[in-house]
Amino acid sequence: MKRKKTLNIAIVGLGNIGTFLFKYLNKNKKSLTKKTNVQPNILYVSAKNINKKRGIIINKKLWLKNYMDAAYKKEVDIVIELIGGADGAAKNLVFKALENKKHVITANKALIAKYGDKLSKIAENNKVNLEYEAAVCGGVPIIRLLKEGLIANNIKKVKGIFNGTSNFILTTMEKNKISFKEALISAQKLGFAESNPESDINGEDVASKLKILSSLCFNSFLNNNIYVEGIKNVDHDDIINADKLGYKIKLLGFSEVNQNKITQRVHPTLIKKNSYIASVNGVLNAIIMDGKPVGTSIIQGEGAGPEATTSALVSDISSILRGNIKYPFSISSKERKKIKFDSILNQKFSSYIRLDVLDKHGVLSNITSVLAKNKVSIKRLIQTPFKTKKHSCVIIITHKALDFDLMKTLAVLSKKNYTVSRPKLIRIDNN
Amino acid sequence: MKRKKTLNIAIVGLGNIGTFLFKYLNKNKKSLTKKTNVQPNILYVSAKNINKKRGIIINKKLWLKNYMDAAYKKEVDIVIELIGGADGAAKNLVFKALENKKHVITANKALIAKYGDKLSKIAENNKVNLEYEAAVCGGVPIIRLLKEGLIANNIKKVKGIFNGTSNFILTTMEKNKISFKEALISAQKLGFAESNPESDINGEDVASKLKILSSLCFNSFLNNNIYVEGIKNVDHDDIINADKLGYKIKLLGFSEVNQNKITQRVHPTLIKKNSYIASVNGVLNAIIMDGKPVGTSIIQGEGAGPEATTSALVSDISSILRGNIKYPFSISSKERKKIKFDSILNQKFSSYIRLDVLDKHGVLSNITSVLAKNKVSIKRLIQTPFKTKKHSCVIIITHKALDFDLMKTLAVLSKKNYTVSRPKLIRIDNN
Repeated sequence: MKRKKTLNIAIVGLGNIGTFLFKYLNKNKKSLTKKTNVQPNILYVSAKNINKKRGIIINKKLWLKNYMDAAYKKEVDIVIELIGGADGAAKNLVFKALENKKHVITANKALIAKYGDKLSKIAENNKVNLEYEAAVCGGVPIIRLLKEGLIANNIKKVKGIFNGTSNFILTTMEKNKISFKEALISAQKLGFAESNPESDINGEDVASKLKILSSLCFNSFLNNNIYVEGIKNVDHDDIINADKLGYKIKLLGFSEVNQNKITQRVHPTLIKKNSYIASVNGVLNAIIMDGKPVGTSIIQGEGAGPEATTSALVSDISSILRGNIKYPFSISSKERKKIKFDSILNQKFSSYIRLDVLDKHGVLSNITSVLAKNKVSIKRLIQTPFKTKKHSCVIIITHKALDFDLMKTLAVLSKKNYTVSRPKLIRIDNN
Repeated sequence: MKRKKTLNIAIVGLGNIGTFLFKYLNKNKKSLTKKTNVQPNILYVSAKNINKKRGIIINKKLWLKNYMDAAYKKEVDIVIELIGGADGAAKNLVFKALENKKHVITANKALIAKYGDKLSKIAENNKVNLEYEAAVCGGVPIIRLLKEGLIANNIKKVKGIFNGTSNFILTTMEKNKISFKEALISAQKLGFAESNPESDINGEDVASKLKILSSLCFNSFLNNNIYVEGIKNVDHDDIINADKLGYKIKLLGFSEVNQNKITQRVHPTLIKKNSYIASVNGVLNAIIMDGKPVGTSIIQGEGAGPEATTSALVSDISSILRGNIKYPFSISSKERKKIKFDSILNQKFSSYIRLDVLDKHGVLSNITSVLAKNKVSIKRLIQTPFKTKKHSCVIIITHKALDFDLMKTLAVLSKKNYTVSRPKLIRIDNN
C-alpha cells in the first residue's frame, strides 16, 4: 500500500453536479481517506461562469485561468470532466488529460459512446484510469458491477430502463391520464427534464448508454449500429389500449448477441403489467442482465440528479485512490472484438399495431389480407368505433413476425385511402 | 502492473460448488487472465472424499495430503475455503492461511458472521485479502456493491430477501396452495433445500448474512444482537388471510441504525402485494438499501447454487488477481465502531394477529379490551366462524404499536381459556 498519500483533483464544470460533488468531497474527505488510505484533495476547479451563485465557498486559489490547464498542471492527478457534450471542450480536455497521464473521470455518456475506444487506448498505454460510472444510469453502479461483481459471466443480453426523463413522462401520462406534452411540461417543472429534453425523449441518451454497456457485456468495440426510436409518438390512447390488453408502455433499450452478431435497439415497448420492469416507475432506472453462469441479475436505482451522479463519481474517485487500475472496457483494447451487427429488420417481434380507419364496408377484410400477404399473423384484433366521427380504431396484437415484414405491412397500410392517420406500431417484449 | 504473473490457488472442499468452480477456472483461465493480467492456477485441491464421482478429471498431483497443507505450502497464494461451518476445519484453515499471509476466499457466512472481526484484523496486518462475496446472497455481488459501487453513501437501512430456500417454500405454499411441510418436501426434491434445512427455515442463515451486511453498511463491528424468527409457524391459512387483506408473506431481514443504535431482525413479514419485494419469488434474493446521497438502490439475483456461487467466487479471485487489496470490512479495524443495539421490543410495528377462539358470548369484547389495555389499537378486525367446529378465527390488523406491547398482548391472550391454539403474530412492513 505504499502510494502517494494525497491525490490532487481538478473539477472542470461546476453545474448542479459539479457543485454537489465539491460539497460532498469537502465534507467527506476524512471518511474517503479512511476507506482508501489516500486523501482526495480538490486542488483546482474551473467553470464557464465564475460568478454564478452556487451556495459554496471556493477559495480563489482553486480557480484555473483556463479549463485546459487541468490537463497540463503537473500537480494534478485526477481530472473530473463535468462539461458535457461529445465534442468541443469536453473532448479536448479528456484527450489531453489522458495523453498527459492524468486519471480521468467523466459523467459524459456522449463522449464515451463516441470516443471511448480511442480514449481507452490512450489510458491503457499511459497506465492511468478512465472511469465513467456516472455516464450510465447515474447512481446505479452498473459499470463496476459488469467489470467486477459479475466479471465471471458471459453476458449475452442486457435490457432495461435507461432514461429517467422518459420513464417519468410515461409514468405520469399513465397515472394522471394526461398527454405527452402535458407530462413533459410537468417533468420540466419538477426538474426531471431539461429545457431542451430532445436527447432524452428521442432515445439518443439511451442509445449512448446502451452502446457503452454492449461493449462491456460483450467485450467488443463500441458499435454504432443501433435502432433508435423515442417516445414522442406514444399518445395517451396507446397507454389506455395497452392497459386494456394487460400491458404497460416503457422506453426500453435492448442489446443482445446471437450467433456472434449484435443487435442494439431502443424503442417504446409493451411489457406485461405484472413483469418486474413494469414496476419501475418515475425517474428510476433498471438494468436486467442474462449471464452465464449467474443467471438473471437486476439492479435498480436513481438514474439522474446531482446526488445519484455524485455517488457514481465518488465510486470512480475511490477506485483511483485505491490504486485499482483497470482496463476502461474490462479487457485490453488488443483483446476487444469487432462484432458484426444484425439489423433489427431480421429480428422477430410480437407487436401492437394501431390503425385509425374510415368506418366503411370491406376495410377490415382489406387490412387482414394485407397482414396475411406480408406474413404477419394476428393474435388479437379489437375494432372500436369512434363516437363522434365516422372512424374506427383497429388495434391488432400480432404473433411474432419479422420486423421487415411488420415495417412493410405498416408502409402498405399507410398508403391505403381508408387510413385516416399514420399507422402506429409498438413492439412487445414478453420476456 | 508489475506483479506476479501467476497466482496459485488451493481449493479446499469439492462439493457441488467446489467442483463447479474447478471446472469454471479450467475453462476460463484465458479470459480471466485477459481481464486481470494475472493467471489463476489451481495448484492444489482437497476434499474429504477423494473417490467421490465429480465428473471432472483431477490430476493426482493436485491432491493435498492434508487440507491444512493449503495454509502451509509456500507456493500457495490463494486459499479458497469451501468446507462450511463456523468452527472446526473451516475455522482452522482460514485462520492459519491468513496468519501465513495467504489471500483467503470463503463462501462461509457462518464463519464470517462469527469470526469476521478477528479474521479481518489478521488479514489487514498481513496485507492480504479476505474475500467473502459468495457468503452473502450467492450470485448477487452485494459485498462489492457496498465496498465499491456505493462507497460514497451513508447507509442507514438495509432490508431484503436473503434466503432462497425460505422464499421458495413461501412462494410454493402460495402458488400451489399447499402446506409448509409439502412445500418443504417439494423444495428438497428440486434441490432448493438441503436434507437438513434447519438453518434456512429457522432464520439463522439470514441472521448470519444480515450481521455481515450491517457491518459493511454501518462501518461497525459484527453485532450479535439480532431477533430471529423463521418460517416454520407460517401456515397456509396465514397466506390466504394475508392475500385477502392485500398482502404477501415473505421472510425478510432488516437492519437499521437510528440515533446511533442498531436494530437487526429476521422474521416472516406481511408486505403489500404491489410492492417490489412481493414480486421477488422462488429462490431469488433481493436487497434494498437506503443511502445518502444516492437514494434507494435495489439489487436482485440468484441467491444460491453452484453457478451463482461460482460467479461470486470468481469476482473475489479476480479482485485478488488485479492486486486490489481492500480492508475486508471496507474500513480498517481501527476505524470500525462498536454500535449499541436497540431491542426489537422498543420498535413499533403494525401487525397481523391471528386468534383461534371458542365461539361464545363476550369473547370478542374481552379480546378488544386486552388490546386496549396494552396500548394496541385495532385498524381492522375480521371474525370468521369455522364451519365444522365451535370455533372462530379472529384476524386483527393493528396500528403501529410497541413490539413490547404486542408481545405482552399475545402472552395475555394465550392464557385466556377461550383461545384454542397459540395466538400468532406476524409483523407488517408498509414501506
